[in-house]
Amino acid sequence: MKVLVINCGSSSLKYQLIDSDTEELLAKGLCERIAVDGRLTHTTTGKEKYTKDLPMPDHNAAVSYVLEALTDKETGAITDLSEIDAVGHRIVHGGEKFAKSVVITDEVIAAIEECNDLAPLHNPANLIGIRACQKLMPGVPNVGVFDTAFHQTMPDKAYIYGIPYEYYTDYKIRRYGFHGTSHSFVSKRTAELLGKNIEDTKIIVCHLGNGSSITAVKGGKSVDTTMGLTPLAGVIMGTRSGDIDPAIIEFLANKTGKNIEEINTILNKKSGVYGLSGGFSDFRDLGKGMEEGNDRCRLALDVFAYGVKKYIGAYAAAMGGVDAIAFTAGIGENNPYVRNLAMSDMEYMGITIDQEANKVMGDEKLISTPDSKVKVFVVPTNEELAIARETVALV
Amino acid sequence: MKVLVINCGSSSLKYQLIDSDTEELLAKGLCERIAVDGRLTHTTTGKEKYTKDLPMPDHNAAVSYVLEALTDKETGAITDLSEIDAVGHRIVHGGEKFAKSVVITDEVIAAIEECNDLAPLHNPANLIGIRACQKLMPGVPNVGVFDTAFHQTMPDKAYIYGIPYEYYTDYKIRRYGFHGTSHSFVSKRTAELLGKNIEDTKIIVCHLGNGSSITAVKGGKSVDTTMGLTPLAGVIMGTRSGDIDPAIIEFLANKTGKNIEEINTILNKKSGVYGLSGGFSDFRDLGKGMEEGNDRCRLALDVFAYGVKKYIGAYAAAMGGVDAIAFTAGIGENNPYVRNLAMSDMEYMGITIDQEANKVMGDEKLISTPDSKVKVFVVPTNEELAIARETVALV
Repeated sequence: MKVLVINCGSSSLKYQLIDSDTEELLAKGLCERIAVDGRLTHTTTGKEKYTKDLPMPDHNAAVSYVLEALTDKETGAITDLSEIDAVGHRIVHGGEKFAKSVVITDEVIAAIEECNDLAPLHNPANLIGIRACQKLMPGVPNVGVFDTAFHQTMPDKAYIYGIPYEYYTDYKIRRYGFHGTSHSFVSKRTAELLGKNIEDTKIIVCHLGNGSSITAVKGGKSVDTTMGLTPLAGVIMGTRSGDIDPAIIEFLANKTGKNIEEINTILNKKSGVYGLSGGFSDFRDLGKGMEEGNDRCRLALDVFAYGVKKYIGAYAAAMGGVDAIAFTAGIGENNPYVRNLAMSDMEYMGITIDQEANKVMGDEKLISTPDSKVKVFVVPTNEELAIARETVALV
Repeated sequence: MKVLVINCGSSSLKYQLIDSDTEELLAKGLCERIAVDGRLTHTTTGKEKYTKDLPMPDHNAAVSYVLEALTDKETGAITDLSEIDAVGHRIVHGGEKFAKSVVITDEVIAAIEECNDLAPLHNPANLIGIRACQKLMPGVPNVGVFDTAFHQTMPDKAYIYGIPYEYYTDYKIRRYGFHGTSHSFVSKRTAELLGKNIEDTKIIVCHLGNGSSITAVKGGKSVDTTMGLTPLAGVIMGTRSGDIDPAIIEFLANKTGKNIEEINTILNKKSGVYGLSGGFSDFRDLGKGMEEGNDRCRLALDVFAYGVKKYIGAYAAAMGGVDAIAFTAGIGENNPYVRNLAMSDMEYMGITIDQEANKVMGDEKLISTPDSKVKVFVVPTNEELAIARETVALV
């Protein structure tokens, strides 16, 4: 079965065509600057990558070009659109309505729309992508895979905030968590690497990328996660603050004269390691800066790794122990320095890192010593493949 | 030596007279409704407690009545004011200026004033108390003991927030932490109970009262603590939210039309277990409510204890292990249910609670089993005695 996986942003669209039988990537690409001008970058596996400026007044146009690129006689991956059996869509926010992936119907679209105010930038864009596919590929089933769904198993003590309860019942303010597709994918693979039935495992997944979140997965179910109502919470990230004293917002407003919206934008776009280091959000640049003696790069790396370390300790406590810790995503897979900082001095709970094995970048690997009671792995994530699997399971 | 300990609020003044040689409490009391009308409640040890309505237009008047009450021939504790050798003042915020207690001078007062905007409700009141004592007891030394001082040993990775670094340098926005006098007092006593030099210990102090904070104390020094720029951060409390996704503030502002100040007031005064349970901030009431089947009381207790549990795990990770955990303050000393919830299922890190011993309320006691690798204690706090000790050490 061939599955087209689509991740629609407000002005972008990422896609992959995956053969679900072999799990091979057939083609991938990106549409950018939708509704501005338009640019397509496409690669069919085994052929050359190319970029084209193309007029994309809306997402329908973008999807059209994607379908053209996939079926192009010279540079395409398939000969006819009818070869696409299903489309899997990444959807950011499923609120409390979606605890699982779902085949898109009119009712489902209405329910996703009801979650729009929880993700006002993302959900409407995701819906535009769905509607474009419905229009251009009539009869092909669309499946929605939610970033939040995996975390719907959290117990109330983990998802309820210490604020008036009416804010939960009236406005649905609670912890939702994100990166669920990745946490689910990586925790399943980690259980396989442990050689255990996932129902008998306690796993902490550290998804550390430009956005970072950490999840406690007990028996295959998310029981706690660091992101909250929005992806701003948890550890510090590329440009996001993570957890701060909530009183800082009023304090900053009084000091700077900025309003809540402006401060929220700063916390999302100008904070994190970028704000701490004074302009570096790429962790390779931070490492280089630190080596060159830039103490604020050192500080940003320290604060980041220390935050990860504390959540690992917290989630071991939450689950009554931990069998394995998995590092994934851009930083988790590729940054031995951060992994080592986060995992150092953790022998008290049975974690010992193998310094040599920890040099790995980008490959699946056990990075704890043979006698480490808690196994630590690097497990590359693949959200698109996970979406394709979910899609196949439903159509 | 006789030390008067004063804790001045904006409209109240709590005091204790302590004999620092025997560490006996000689008298204690409270002035309330200062600048409104005025009421004094006084108890000399061994004599009857009494309450009097007295006109208190300002803190000078309140301090005058306190000194009269202490020297009253019938109901007082001393015969002459000259018996008071020193006054120790609790001061809430010492910013980065005070890492230790200090004898009050004009320079010190000026430095405390510079910290006023970090604690606009508390520091000015503390200063009024100091000035009243200087005026009414000329020649008697005053000592300032800061809630924040003990935490000044935190490393930068623990006190720096993931926000633009200029907010730290320009506005001093960082984690300060509070309850320092209590965390210091209790960690010292815990080291004694362990029979170890405090420099060789890793201790987690859980100060759980109407305000709650948890501190990681390594080698006698605070290395991390849950409260932040203000006492709003950390675990949920009686009426405070503790940590929340900072994006909730903008979300709430959009939903309710409230401004930042109003929302901050809700997070401080109407949140925590009070907001969750729908009106109960006293933990005895929560326990009763839960037993009667009130599920929101159960939820409030669960969220509170789960937050404590996660911070214990996080701080063990921060210190590379933990030798002892100490529970103190109103809830910490008196609530076996919460202690048990927070400590259950922690055998993976060497903690086993002795259910029988954990029934203790208000007394110093080991509540872990003899074979528990990590020792867990109830250690009653005594902030006034700690302030008296600090005062004596400096005069």
